[in-house]
Amino acid sequence: MEEEKKEAHQENNNLISLKKPLRCIVKLGGAAITCKNEIEKINEENLEIVSSHLRESMMIVSSSSEKVLGMDWSKRPGVSEISISSDDYNDQSLLDFNNFIIVHGAGSFGHFQASQSGVHKGGLQLPIVKAGFVATRISVTSLNLEIVRALAREGIPSIGMPPFASGWSTCDRKIASAGVSQVVEVVDSGFVPVLHGDAVLDDLQGCTILSGDVIIRHLAELLKPQYVVFLTDVYGVYDRPPTDPGAVLLREIAVDDDGNWSIVKPTLQNMNKQVEITVAAHDTTGGMVTKISEAAVIAKLGIDVYIVKVNCLR
Amino acid sequence: MEEEKKEAHQENNNLISLKKPLRCIVKLGGAAITCKNEIEKINEENLEIVSSHLRESMMIVSSSSEKVLGMDWSKRPGVSEISISSDDYNDQSLLDFNNFIIVHGAGSFGHFQASQSGVHKGGLQLPIVKAGFVATRISVTSLNLEIVRALAREGIPSIGMPPFASGWSTCDRKIASAGVSQVVEVVDSGFVPVLHGDAVLDDLQGCTILSGDVIIRHLAELLKPQYVVFLTDVYGVYDRPPTDPGAVLLREIAVDDDGNWSIVKPTLQNMNKQVEITVAAHDTTGGMVTKISEAAVIAKLGIDVYIVKVNCLR
Repeated sequence: MEEEKKEAHQENNNLISLKKPLRCIVKLGGAAITCKNEIEKINEENLEIVSSHLRESMMIVSSSSEKVLGMDWSKRPGVSEISISSDDYNDQSLLDFNNFIIVHGAGSFGHFQASQSGVHKGGLQLPIVKAGFVATRISVTSLNLEIVRALAREGIPSIGMPPFASGWSTCDRKIASAGVSQVVEVVDSGFVPVLHGDAVLDDLQGCTILSGDVIIRHLAELLKPQYVVFLTDVYGVYDRPPTDPGAVLLREIAVDDDGNWSIVKPTLQNMNKQVEITVAAHDTTGGMVTKISEAAVIAKLGIDVYIVKVNCLR
Repeated sequence: MEEEKKEAHQENNNLISLKKPLRCIVKLGGAAITCKNEIEKINEENLEIVSSHLRESMMIVSSSSEKVLGMDWSKRPGVSEISISSDDYNDQSLLDFNNFIIVHGAGSFGHFQASQSGVHKGGLQLPIVKAGFVATRISVTSLNLEIVRALAREGIPSIGMPPFASGWSTCDRKIASAGVSQVVEVVDSGFVPVLHGDAVLDDLQGCTILSGDVIIRHLAELLKPQYVVFLTDVYGVYDRPPTDPGAVLLREIAVDDDGNWSIVKPTLQNMNKQVEITVAAHDTTGGMVTKISEAAVIAKLGIDVYIVKVNCLR
């Protein structure tokens, strides 16, 4: 039965195509939208700026970019009633969006729970891993909800799609099934799906962490967006940790057909050999190594990848 | 392609069986876990009591019922650090749960957003409906997250599965596809899926509201639980609105093979003809009519249905 289920998934994936081409997959880096050094704290300022910039780049008719069709009608703290004026919702042009998919990282959400319990290493039969799996999902889905709300306040018709709940799983930490048909249905209906790094079931080791970057690579392969944008807290990829004195920003990296990458700009001698990659201890998804290699795989498909700093005017 | 996708879903549903029989599907009634007259307010006291009672009834080894393996490791307000003692997580018996599925209603969440925009009537091409769809989902998924957290605090390994994100859709307001295989996978892995009434896509009218009661009926048909329990804010079904003076509690209702229902206890003459059913204006899912007829369909399958008041000791 496991086999048949997987086949059905695979079949679905092969059939998949969007009604309208996919403009862009955006990665909201965890470091850009949360406060790295404070557990479970959102960087509200950055999130608001990102949401507003995203709306501008998604809208087809830019002239109405001043007007916002708020889509989070939740009760505000301290206010007992919600009031919606339906007259505000008559401007049809406010619904003309290019096709986008958003995937966010976890930042200071989820990592603590995952690393304390070892969810990424599997072993669901252990109470600590099982509890950690539940705790990790609570943390990342609460971040997902807040991001969906911030986007909806800016008029982006966003739909939270937690990967575990929407059909993503792995085998030996590689994607075994993916809820791509659901993502396509959401995009085709004029919504913006918002996925994220999540704890998922793994056929071999029981469970693991599926990173947002791996999800993006998979979606990019199947749905062929015009481009993929990684929004992060630094200006791009550096030759060593960007906090180190003398770190050099790598302005353009080329990826050849074999997936090897080389630095195009700046043209420093032997630069390639000097690139240092470090992984923070609390990062259960592989840190910069995963990020760069996933970006390289996307570029290899012929899709331009941009790495952009959020809130770069500060 | 639409056709093929639906066939794949159908195929999955036919293949579905659980590793271990399903003990129970529990409906947490919206009226029991939220404050009916206050928008987006959870009835914390009831939710805590329900969660604790659910844990007791789920656990196989009742002797350790005093000990709780907390699974919500979120940061508490006003506390900057989270500390988890992994020694607390060594008792393997705390993971022996009977197979349960939980489905909750929306109560004072979602209904306002759905009724203001007419999401249940469809028409996603209208800005107000599209915004209302997003707003409804934000409201019900935020309730789902809080319920998952309350259950996890009581040691129930709960997994939020918002129906729209996990593959449920309708055609002419009837279920067209259902994410049952995902629910089965979650149960088979030892978790408790937590679904809810949700805004979903509808092949015919664009979108609608899929009620928790319809989801339960569908799951009961396919997964044949030993029993289905509806937890609500009243002692059961009355012959007229329970707030009316002289309302009589119907202690046992029998459903025949044709789906007709009759009152077994109390044995009042002509009771059947006197039953009055009212639907509140803000209820977009059909109120008591839907609830009783869905319960009757489940009973017709030969599955006992219990309607129980939450927190009945008060």
